[in-house]
Amino acid sequence: MAKEKKEFVKEITRMEDDFAQWYTDVIRKTDMIDYSPVKGFLVLKPYGYALWENIQGFLDRRFKETGHENVYFPLLIPESLLNKEKEHVEGFAPEVAWVTHGGSEELQERLCIRPTSETIICSMYAKWLKSYRELPYLYNQWASVVRWEKETRPFLRHREFLWQEGHTLHETYEEAQEETLRMLGIYRELAEDFLAIPVVSGIKSDKEKFAGAESTYTIEALMHDGKALQSGTSHNLAKHFTEAFEITYLDRDGLLKNPYHTSWGSSTRLIGAVIMAHGDNRGLILPPRLAPVQVVIIPIMPHKEGVLEKARAVEGLLKDRGIRVKLDDSENNSPGWKFNEYEMKGVPVRLEIGPRDLADNVAMVARRDNLQKSACSLDTIDETIARLLDTIHQDMFDKALKEREEKTFTVKNLEELKDQMENRPGFAKMMWCGSGACEDRIKMETAATIRCIPFEEEKVGDCCAVCGGEAKHMVYVAKAY
Amino acid sequence: MAKEKKEFVKEITRMEDDFAQWYTDVIRKTDMIDYSPVKGFLVLKPYGYALWENIQGFLDRRFKETGHENVYFPLLIPESLLNKEKEHVEGFAPEVAWVTHGGSEELQERLCIRPTSETIICSMYAKWLKSYRELPYLYNQWASVVRWEKETRPFLRHREFLWQEGHTLHETYEEAQEETLRMLGIYRELAEDFLAIPVVSGIKSDKEKFAGAESTYTIEALMHDGKALQSGTSHNLAKHFTEAFEITYLDRDGLLKNPYHTSWGSSTRLIGAVIMAHGDNRGLILPPRLAPVQVVIIPIMPHKEGVLEKARAVEGLLKDRGIRVKLDDSENNSPGWKFNEYEMKGVPVRLEIGPRDLADNVAMVARRDNLQKSACSLDTIDETIARLLDTIHQDMFDKALKEREEKTFTVKNLEELKDQMENRPGFAKMMWCGSGACEDRIKMETAATIRCIPFEEEKVGDCCAVCGGEAKHMVYVAKAY
Repeated sequence: MAKEKKEFVKEITRMEDDFAQWYTDVIRKTDMIDYSPVKGFLVLKPYGYALWENIQGFLDRRFKETGHENVYFPLLIPESLLNKEKEHVEGFAPEVAWVTHGGSEELQERLCIRPTSETIICSMYAKWLKSYRELPYLYNQWASVVRWEKETRPFLRHREFLWQEGHTLHETYEEAQEETLRMLGIYRELAEDFLAIPVVSGIKSDKEKFAGAESTYTIEALMHDGKALQSGTSHNLAKHFTEAFEITYLDRDGLLKNPYHTSWGSSTRLIGAVIMAHGDNRGLILPPRLAPVQVVIIPIMPHKEGVLEKARAVEGLLKDRGIRVKLDDSENNSPGWKFNEYEMKGVPVRLEIGPRDLADNVAMVARRDNLQKSACSLDTIDETIARLLDTIHQDMFDKALKEREEKTFTVKNLEELKDQMENRPGFAKMMWCGSGACEDRIKMETAATIRCIPFEEEKVGDCCAVCGGEAKHMVYVAKAY
Repeated sequence: MAKEKKEFVKEITRMEDDFAQWYTDVIRKTDMIDYSPVKGFLVLKPYGYALWENIQGFLDRRFKETGHENVYFPLLIPESLLNKEKEHVEGFAPEVAWVTHGGSEELQERLCIRPTSETIICSMYAKWLKSYRELPYLYNQWASVVRWEKETRPFLRHREFLWQEGHTLHETYEEAQEETLRMLGIYRELAEDFLAIPVVSGIKSDKEKFAGAESTYTIEALMHDGKALQSGTSHNLAKHFTEAFEITYLDRDGLLKNPYHTSWGSSTRLIGAVIMAHGDNRGLILPPRLAPVQVVIIPIMPHKEGVLEKARAVEGLLKDRGIRVKLDDSENNSPGWKFNEYEMKGVPVRLEIGPRDLADNVAMVARRDNLQKSACSLDTIDETIARLLDTIHQDMFDKALKEREEKTFTVKNLEELKDQMENRPGFAKMMWCGSGACEDRIKMETAATIRCIPFEEEKVGDCCAVCGGEAKHMVYVAKAY
């Protein structure tokens, strides 16, 4: 078994040697995704898609609990609609795919495949909305979008990716702002309570905000390599689109007004975050609430009397508790091969049941996150495992938080920032004067960007770390995916 | 209230006067769908999308119970791939949308938006499959597809529609055939056990089968106007695609072989079937298992002591039993307005609770399907309603089956078929010699088509009803959507 494991691990590049290659190796070996004949378009295979389904399940439930309904808007958007909001078209037009022919006929107007749906949705809202009585509109859409990116990386940047986009209308700015923050809060819940990834939440600088937004809020996670990954954004669009699209309603006071507007989205790139925030040199480590298989049971010497029966009985017990369990009693592969396989695939808990365990009335329990093994009484195994899954979630979160803290430094000037980004990549906390010029300089000289002005600002100095002028905000700076 | 109801109903055209207009009116009034700025592309609004979500829920569960996993393949397909299977490209190329530009660059090869995914999926299967040990492949995809249809009708024919498509590979023809029929069986379950729509199942004639299929199986439902609606199809593709795409595997005997292949799909057009198989002149009648809201509770004189409290208590009881219940205690609208609204929207059961009911310890129960009202003891209301929902399902199915039987006639020759199609539209059962020439004549002279050769053939004569030659099959013929 030791030999097998060694041979196996050899195939995944060590992350210390080449992090990007490690990432690609893990994805390839765990069979989550594959490249298609169309450049930048990837296939989500069953194991990858199952992760997305579980993320969908969490979000869809939370969206509905907070009063949202699902809808579906067209895939294609007329060029003239895309052009209506000035900043938006500048942001997106360079990276859309254009449909020019339907069947054998050339279209009179080009249609783009949605890169995001604000424009098509606003054109419909303009048609629908009549009275303040109908507000708020609280709609969400599950869909795929296309952005013609130059470079693609599995999960992180595809030309087509799966996501959800919420689009809401409100009577007042305050309500829109509340919605914007509520939905960011749900993304934070998803990251922390479901994916076990601690995030920094805050507002984007003007340069980093969504094309057409009044303000963009973000959750930012830190990966093992010290790079940040934007993991969900929520936009207060104020009246930017509702004015451009002439969405009006008759208000309580009898006047015709434009409503306030939000949008918010999260995508399959979250799966990339899970891989890079938790994985190790053996492969994936899946947080228990996300894992398609939470517990794998591997019978040892299944032909010995009682082994397979007990394994099946334990499977039944766990299923009855709502635990996603898989009994692997296939005979093609040895137990050792199976250990490696499920370790690589990040299954949170492995149960081994063999004749000796049976004699002792125990199963061996192996945790994927810390590789610890212990014996567990078969009498209380369902309760033990249910509790253990929660413990693993918390331990994974704590570990990721500790790692983030160890990779977060306060920097006083551009030299320190450069030094950190080169030698100890992670989050830099620094003071900033708020100017675009200083923001540009950070990017130019360090390739890092301001990730956000956090909700909880600490004062780590008085002067802007770039220009030395009066500081307005503390910001998190990092290189980012 | 009588007055309101009359005024309201006036807005939906009577189906006896103009069935097509009735259909459009129902959809418009119930706010399920809207036209978008792109011709043929429709928006699914919350009430329409909720129906699709419930259909998805049923199918996704059954697909998983039968061993299938979900995946996601690219939206765009290179022209060269579409061209690989000869019959397939002839069937679909005239109606695809072409992407010619990505960002500002013209593409070297045109990409079509998937009209269905056999070609892109087969190109990946060719890459993946190595050994018989990996078979069967049992994959399904939830997606939208685009077909550049000339005419569009809500739910029945959109240029973009939501659907699922299953794509499986097998070692033997028999296994592929078994899978093809198993999935048709699940569509039949969906139609009959979930949507309360009886269907005729059978095989398509060669002219009506899917482009590229060895054989196509279908479920056909009958609408109120006597037209058939194809409600789900399952295709045994044999090796047509696996040979064209060079999908091979090493078999048990050490030889390289092409696997057998199936695909099967169902779409949002099922919602059109529900409308036209069950609806009446007041609007929708939703089968209980599909209905987003199964029971609406309307408090009468909610300001009287105890009324609202009791309504809320009943709401809680029903929720605890897993019934989808809505308490409408809004004060903007009168009870009469609400009665009409939920009747129009097809909510299966309305509960009225007022002071007089409270005094009698009852609620008034109104069924949408037969408009009957009765009093129901509040003590056992949750059990009564749970049972009633099943009864309504069965009664709706029985009613639809009776209607279909009343609209099904045996015809002996083309004159009788013409006469039926003109004067008593519905299913014609007739004998057919199996020739394409006779099939063409049916279509030309009656505008009806052979819907299927049913699994359970009855012998209704000896000679082909068209040419008088020796009959091979009994077929169902109807005009179709």
